Amino acid sequence: MKRLLFLALLIAFVGNIRAQETIMFNTGNIVSPEIKNDQTVTFRFLAPNAQKVEVEGSFLKQNRRAALTKDERGVWSFTTEVLQPEMHTYCFYVDGIRMTDPNNVYMCRDIATYTNYFFIDGELSANYIVRDVPHGTVSKVWYPSPGLGMNARRFTVYTPAGYEEGKKRYPVLYLLHGAGGDENAWSELGRAAQIADNLIAQGKAEPMIIVMPNGNGAQKAMPGEYENSMQKPTFMSRGMMDGAIEKAFPKDVVGYVDAHFRTIADKNHRAISGLSMGGFHSIYISANNPDMFGYIAPMSAAINRQSRNQQQPEIYQNLEEKMVTLFQKKPKLYRIYIGNTDFLFQDNVNFRKMLDKHGCKYEYFESDEGHIWANWRKYLNDLLPKLFK
Amino acid sequence: MKRLLFLALLIAFVGNIRAQETIMFNTGNIVSPEIKNDQTVTFRFLAPNAQKVEVEGSFLKQNRRAALTKDERGVWSFTTEVLQPEMHTYCFYVDGIRMTDPNNVYMCRDIATYTNYFFIDGELSANYIVRDVPHGTVSKVWYPSPGLGMNARRFTVYTPAGYEEGKKRYPVLYLLHGAGGDENAWSELGRAAQIADNLIAQGKAEPMIIVMPNGNGAQKAMPGEYENSMQKPTFMSRGMMDGAIEKAFPKDVVGYVDAHFRTIADKNHRAISGLSMGGFHSIYISANNPDMFGYIAPMSAAINRQSRNQQQPEIYQNLEEKMVTLFQKKPKLYRIYIGNTDFLFQDNVNFRKMLDKHGCKYEYFESDEGHIWANWRKYLNDLLPKLFK
Repeated sequence: MKRLLFLALLIAFVGNIRAQETIMFNTGNIVSPEIKNDQTVTFRFLAPNAQKVEVEGSFLKQNRRAALTKDERGVWSFTTEVLQPEMHTYCFYVDGIRMTDPNNVYMCRDIATYTNYFFIDGELSANYIVRDVPHGTVSKVWYPSPGLGMNARRFTVYTPAGYEEGKKRYPVLYLLHGAGGDENAWSELGRAAQIADNLIAQGKAEPMIIVMPNGNGAQKAMPGEYENSMQKPTFMSRGMMDGAIEKAFPKDVVGYVDAHFRTIADKNHRAISGLSMGGFHSIYISANNPDMFGYIAPMSAAINRQSRNQQQPEIYQNLEEKMVTLFQKKPKLYRIYIGNTDFLFQDNVNFRKMLDKHGCKYEYFESDEGHIWANWRKYLNDLLPKLFK
Repeated sequence: MKRLLFLALLIAFVGNIRAQETIMFNTGNIVSPEIKNDQTVTFRFLAPNAQKVEVEGSFLKQNRRAALTKDERGVWSFTTEVLQPEMHTYCFYVDGIRMTDPNNVYMCRDIATYTNYFFIDGELSANYIVRDVPHGTVSKVWYPSPGLGMNARRFTVYTPAGYEEGKKRYPVLYLLHGAGGDENAWSELGRAAQIADNLIAQGKAEPMIIVMPNGNGAQKAMPGEYENSMQKPTFMSRGMMDGAIEKAFPKDVVGYVDAHFRTIADKNHRAISGLSMGGFHSIYISANNPDMFGYIAPMSAAINRQSRNQQQPEIYQNLEEKMVTLFQKKPKLYRIYIGNTDFLFQDNVNFRKMLDKHGCKYEYFESDEGHIWANWRKYLNDLLPKLFK
């Protein structure tokens, strides 16, 4: 019946169409991935002439790849074991060539690589998935950045459901991305809007504004979104850890946000967090502005990974003294997140030893695994309920 | 020198990294597409073991495909002739399998198909490309839709540069997508924000708000953005041309926008336009609300393509009478856009004949080619300067 209705609609609409844009009808009828109630997943790919089709996924153990098998119609398929709740990512290798799944429109870009994703629902992933709850607004906003000598830079901002109504003022979380990322990273790979929507709807997190700026001082915005910027993004580039972003941050970003959004513009209603390079930025911005943030939460922070081929700017000097001053001013929360196989693990051990030596009272959350988005989503989901309470 | 600096940065940052996420480094060093000053473009693809690699592009004549040739390193390449200014789209076929270009991160989704894109700069495409001009804000906003029985639906909204400053009120263009599209279609494939930014900066268009709602009455938002919606989108589905969207539009969409944005809430500061199904929606929404829109511009409108397998709702009845009433009330502009090879061309001829019969004074813009985004970008670029003058 549904198929008949569809055909009736299609004929009514399209009539005697000649295929003017094959793009419109190039969708096939393969279902992939098929997520079953038992939490196994079947991947499918149509390729009668291929010799070998593999799936590479975050959920696969052995080399992270598995072979699909071909049926008589040329459809390759593979069914997983029962998968853990998570936002899982995968791609295909067809005769050795990496490609995304043409039957799954859900993709995310990590720096310069697209990867498909899907969700297994469960306790860990419950807040990553869109639910029937009030949704906040997500906007791309341009602001002037005299501190970086730029007329305009862009941030992503989440304003909670209800922001457009009434006159209420809100606390603000500044949430910073890692090297190679941009102002889209936390909202896409990090599921920041969904995590915030769900935690706020459950009454577990305070309604808050989340500002996700671009942390690459050589960029105005993500590649393609400003003039002459349509190049492939790279993991490392100029302007990421040279002190400029951190120096410009208080006036250019926080100042703009306080002037243009209904914020509660004081220390105890301001938080800063970030992953990897963004953890590093969080540490230095807060250490150099000890009266600005009441909540500080570096995640998998790239401590001591600043650029070495220049004189260190003042903002990177005397961190130990600055941390002592910061903790004397008693932030409400200083919470350090790290995975136990992270390549930055030992640097974070050393950072904590330094804080311990001075009796700085921080909190510590150590997870399994390493420098991966699965951890950063988990950390954000843990962090939001601890802010502004 | 640049490469050395990059290596220094990479080593400083990554140190003894073990490849925890191969995703991070899976970017290769192939440049594709390479857009040259002479407006030729070279595509490249690394596949030493492939038998045949082709590019399919909007800019290719013969079957729209061309074969790449392999060099001794296994890099396939093809260089085009001089290309016309446009936002060009393409994909690869590798041994017959369609895939996007892994070295070009710029992709757009048309319904369920991803396609890469690039720009050739020139008169036609000048406003599609991001320039160093003030940029408006693009937001995803949720609003209640009692008319469709939904607690929340989503639109994309462009507010012009300067909106966040001061108290000025703005006119509004409602810009509707086609069948299978969603509230992201005009901002992505249609380059609406870039076209508006550039025309406003040049003083050619009035600063305006552009509201791009979701025109599928069975959806709350684009697939994946509301609960239980992670399915592959389809070209046709329920809720597209059954009268419900048109009926709910004035109160649910226009009412919300006038209540929550600084609009000039009268007929001569309100415009409606849309492509294909959105052109159809524009025609019926304006015909049924003759005092609501001063500017009406159906593009490649799917006239008479409403669902046939039900009794026609009142909103679709007596169009001829309604058009006469509409024109008696003298809209500032009624401009019909159509391509001369569009499968809907004849329906638009008949529609104009009907208007002619009654002496309705519309404008008419006929382009080459058919039912394609290249035309809809061109039409929008033509339309914005004619609004609110």
